[in-house]
Amino acid sequence: MTEIRLSPAPLTAQAFKPYGGVIETAACAPRSINQGYAQRFNDLCGVDAAREGGAVNVSLFTANPRPHPIAIQLMERHPLGSQAFIPMQERPWLVLVCDDPLDVSTYHLFSATGRQGVNYACNVWHHPLLVFDADSHFLIIDRKGPGENLEEVWLPEAWRVEAFANQP
Amino acid sequence: MTEIRLSPAPLTAQAFKPYGGVIETAACAPRSINQGYAQRFNDLCGVDAAREGGAVNVSLFTANPRPHPIAIQLMERHPLGSQAFIPMQERPWLVLVCDDPLDVSTYHLFSATGRQGVNYACNVWHHPLLVFDADSHFLIIDRKGPGENLEEVWLPEAWRVEAFANQP
Repeated sequence: MTEIRLSPAPLTAQAFKPYGGVIETAACAPRSINQGYAQRFNDLCGVDAAREGGAVNVSLFTANPRPHPIAIQLMERHPLGSQAFIPMQERPWLVLVCDDPLDVSTYHLFSATGRQGVNYACNVWHHPLLVFDADSHFLIIDRKGPGENLEEVWLPEAWRVEAFANQP
Repeated sequence: MTEIRLSPAPLTAQAFKPYGGVIETAACAPRSINQGYAQRFNDLCGVDAAREGGAVNVSLFTANPRPHPIAIQLMERHPLGSQAFIPMQERPWLVLVCDDPLDVSTYHLFSATGRQGVNYACNVWHHPLLVFDADSHFLIIDRKGPGENLEEVWLPEAWRVEAFANQP
């Protein structure tokens, strides 16, 4: 049995750059609009949805908390488009990515604040939504259309991979 | 002086249909995904952003409350794309649309719950964000790119148009 404990690093745009973008207003100077009654944090993520006849798909996910530490059993990727996750309730969550699902040395776990979303670039391996607190709403911007846009890899049964919300 | 008091009707998909779509999960049966750890309310709004070399723009607005009743002074529309507003904090808000900004008989005011967004269709006259409670975050999905995508009409100075959050 191979046991792997993943502990999170803070999510930053720089650390996440190989995997896509961080969706946050912290680094963005807003523009005053609507006669001064609103501030616009503009253009926070790219959307890659038009490949092979695809179109933008706007959805809402309700994610359910998983037992902590979280057992990691599979990774997935979307070969035809990007996928953005934006938390709606300001609750912290976890983001797990890797270069190769079968090489655990390539796994990176990030702790996102409730005001940080992520936009996985096309073809980036990631874990489905990871929340550990309460049912949490996320807005999703990804791709719909023809073609197979989901690839999954289940981890070997001889691995026990656990994701911790904090240092274990 | 022409005085017009607008009182809201509840926002429903049917009533709003001439102007675009209502973004809500109420009428959508979710699909279980992520090994049962999430529910997906899929494809909640169309995105019309590709005209004339445009692309999708994902932004966050912070809307500031206006004094109540709200003085209506201008209407706007976007001739090159749709514009979706999704509330992030479950606070009620107001949606004002019209067929002709200079014909007040065509104005329709809707009260949206904090779990309802709207997607203005391309070229639909609407008022900028209307909140009356506290600073409120909205996620916006609209268009960026070449061309002039904003048209504004200021109402005649001889009009006093007021929008009420409830029956006045």
